[in-house]
Amino acid sequence: MRETWVAGAATNRFGKMAESGREAGARVALAALDRAGLRPQDIGVTFVANAFGIAERQAHVGPLLNSALGIPEVPSCTIESACSSSSAALHEAFVHVAAGFEEAALVVGFEKLSHLDTLAATSYFAVGADYPFEAHNGATFPGLYATIASAHARRYGTRTEELGAVAVKNHANAARNPHAHFQKEISYETYLNSPMIASPLRLYDCCPFSDGAAALVVTARETFPSPASEPLVIRASARAGSLGDIHDRSSMTSLPAARLAAEKAYRAAGVRPGQIDFAEVHDCFTIAELVALEDLGFFPAGEAGRATREGLTARDGQLPVNPSGGLKAKGHPVSATGASQVAEIFEQFNHHAGARQVPKTELALAHNVGATGSSCSVHIFGHR
Amino acid sequence: MRETWVAGAATNRFGKMAESGREAGARVALAALDRAGLRPQDIGVTFVANAFGIAERQAHVGPLLNSALGIPEVPSCTIESACSSSSAALHEAFVHVAAGFEEAALVVGFEKLSHLDTLAATSYFAVGADYPFEAHNGATFPGLYATIASAHARRYGTRTEELGAVAVKNHANAARNPHAHFQKEISYETYLNSPMIASPLRLYDCCPFSDGAAALVVTARETFPSPASEPLVIRASARAGSLGDIHDRSSMTSLPAARLAAEKAYRAAGVRPGQIDFAEVHDCFTIAELVALEDLGFFPAGEAGRATREGLTARDGQLPVNPSGGLKAKGHPVSATGASQVAEIFEQFNHHAGARQVPKTELALAHNVGATGSSCSVHIFGHR
Repeated sequence: MRETWVAGAATNRFGKMAESGREAGARVALAALDRAGLRPQDIGVTFVANAFGIAERQAHVGPLLNSALGIPEVPSCTIESACSSSSAALHEAFVHVAAGFEEAALVVGFEKLSHLDTLAATSYFAVGADYPFEAHNGATFPGLYATIASAHARRYGTRTEELGAVAVKNHANAARNPHAHFQKEISYETYLNSPMIASPLRLYDCCPFSDGAAALVVTARETFPSPASEPLVIRASARAGSLGDIHDRSSMTSLPAARLAAEKAYRAAGVRPGQIDFAEVHDCFTIAELVALEDLGFFPAGEAGRATREGLTARDGQLPVNPSGGLKAKGHPVSATGASQVAEIFEQFNHHAGARQVPKTELALAHNVGATGSSCSVHIFGHR
Repeated sequence: MRETWVAGAATNRFGKMAESGREAGARVALAALDRAGLRPQDIGVTFVANAFGIAERQAHVGPLLNSALGIPEVPSCTIESACSSSSAALHEAFVHVAAGFEEAALVVGFEKLSHLDTLAATSYFAVGADYPFEAHNGATFPGLYATIASAHARRYGTRTEELGAVAVKNHANAARNPHAHFQKEISYETYLNSPMIASPLRLYDCCPFSDGAAALVVTARETFPSPASEPLVIRASARAGSLGDIHDRSSMTSLPAARLAAEKAYRAAGVRPGQIDFAEVHDCFTIAELVALEDLGFFPAGEAGRATREGLTARDGQLPVNPSGGLKAKGHPVSATGASQVAEIFEQFNHHAGARQVPKTELALAHNVGATGSSCSVHIFGHR
C-alpha cells in the first residue's frame, strides 16, 4: 500500500445554487484538479456522491459529470451512504489509488434540494433512516437526534448552555468562511430565543438544508511542476457501521460506528486522539458534535459540553473543532459534506483559511456520519 | 494483486416479490455465503446495489442489510451505476479483496418496483438517462434503444427476424431457468404479433420490469472445510464510461464504453474473444444483445444478427449467450441484474444449471450496461 494524498480540494459557497448539481460538481472538480496540478485526463476513476439526485430527476450522474470534464471514457459510479456519502466515496478513491489500481481518482459530492419545499426535502432526508421503523412513524432526523440529546442529558446532565455553546462557536467560525451558508455570528441569547424544533433541540441546534458541491483529487503521483498547494497525506481512511435504528442500540449516548471507525483510524495512523491538532466533525445537530468529541476520544464521555463552554474547541482553543463552521453553520448539502470537511482541512494545512486559520496543522481528523450513525467514516490527515 | 474469487452466488426468482428489497437481499446474501462456506462474520465490507431504493422510501440500506445479517459493525455503501449497479459493486469488492484491504466482501443487488404502476416505474428508470436532454423530452429507454436499432438496421440491414431470433432464444433458455421471470418459450410468430412499443421494437424485444435480488461473495481466502461449490476466479474486472447521450456520439451502432471495457478485460485476462466459452450479456432490448456481441468482438459489426439466426448463440451453439434467459426473459430487476449474470456463470461453472447447462465452461464473460451505455462493466471468469 503506497502513500496516498488528497492533492487538490475545492468547495463552492454552500446555500442555494442556481445551477444544477452536476454543473456545480463539474465546476468544483475543475477547481480541485487545478489545485492538484492535474488535468481531467489524469483521472482514472470518478466516484460521485449525490444521495438525493432523484430530487433533480437524475441518477447515474457520473458519466454526465465525466462528459462535462471531457473524460467520458473514464469509469464512474455513485456512492451512497446517506450523509456520509462523499467520505465513503473518498474511501473508495483511497483504496483504488493506495492499491495501485489507478494513479489518480476524483471524488465529487453535490446535492441540490433547495428547489423543493421543506416537506419534500425532509421526506428525501428521512429515507436515510430506517424508513418503516423510524420516518414512517414520524421520527425524522430532528426527532431522532433530540432523543439522543435527551438520553445524553439524562445520563450526563448535558445542559442547554452546552448545546448552545456549540452553535455559537460554529457560527463564529462560519462568519469567517466565505464558503459558508450562514456567514454570521449568533449570540447565546439568539440561540436561546430560537423556536423549539424537537425538544430539547431549538432551531439553532439544527443544521440547515443547503445546496452545495465539493471535490477532492486523490493521487499518489508526483506532479511537475509541483502544484502550489501542499497535499494532505491520507494517514488513515476507516469506515464502520452499526445497527440502523437507535431503538435497537444498547446506548443512545454514543454512536458505536463512530467509536469503531475512530479506533480503526487511530490504529492505522499510529496516533492517539491527543495528537490531533484540529478536527472537522459531523454536527448535523449540536448534540452530534458533543457525542462526536466523546466518541473520537477527545474528551471523556459526558465532558465535551463543559469543554466546549470553556472554549477548548474554539479556533484558538487546545483542539479547534469545525473551524469551517461545521454542518451547523457552513451548511449541510448532504453528499457534499464529507468532501467539504476534507476541503477545509486542505485549506487549513495550506494556511489559506484566512480569518478562521487554526494555529497548529500537523495532524487533522475528519468525522462524517450517515443517518443517526449507522455509518461513519473517519479520516486522519498529515504532512509528507 | 492476489487471485480473487467469486466463492458464492445466489439469486431469487425474478418477477414479483412480496417481501421488501432489503429482506430479499438478506435472504440471497445468506444463500451466497452458504455456498461459499463463509459466515456473515467473515465479511469485511458490503457493497449494496439498489439504484431505485427510493421507490421503497429507503436509502442507506447497507447498514440495515448488515444488521439483518448480524454484522451491523461492518462498513457498507450503496453503489449506483443505473442498470450496471451490481457489476460496479462487484468491481469495488474485487478491488478491496484483490488489494488485500479485506479478506472477503459481500455484493448484494436488489430492486423492487412492482408495487408501483408502470408510469411511476418508467419514471424511475428514466432518471438513469440524461434527464434534461433525453427523458424530459420523451426519450425513455425503449425509444432510445429503438433509435439504436434503427441506426443498426440502416447501417447493417439488421432485420426483424434477427431481433426476433434473440427473443426466441432467450425465452427458450429462461423456460429452463427456475429463477427466471418468464419461464416460457415463445415462437417467432408470437414475437412478430406482439404490439409495437417503439418502432422497430415490439413488446417481445423489451425486457420486463422485474423485482429481484442476487448476491455474490468475493474472497481470496481458502475456506475449511472447502465449500461444495467451485469458486470463479475473477480473471478481469473492467469498467468504462462514454458520453451519456446517444445524440452526442459519433456512432449509435456500438457502445464505446462496452468496447473499451471489453478491451481492458481481455488485456487483463490475457485472452481473446474467441476463447470465451459462453457469455451473459446485457439484453435489455434484443438490439442490445446484437450490439453487445459485436462490441465484445464475438462477431464482426453487423453480423451478430445472422449468427443468432443461425443458432451460433444458442445453448448448444459455438458460443452460448444468455443461457439464463438474459434480461429479456430471466427479467431485469435493475440493481440485481449484474450480480445475477455472475450467479448464472457460477451455476454453469458448477454444472448446476440443469436443463440449460452449457457444454463448455472454462472461460465465461459477463457484460452489464448502465443506461444506453454511458457505463459498462465487463468481467471474465475462469477456473483455479
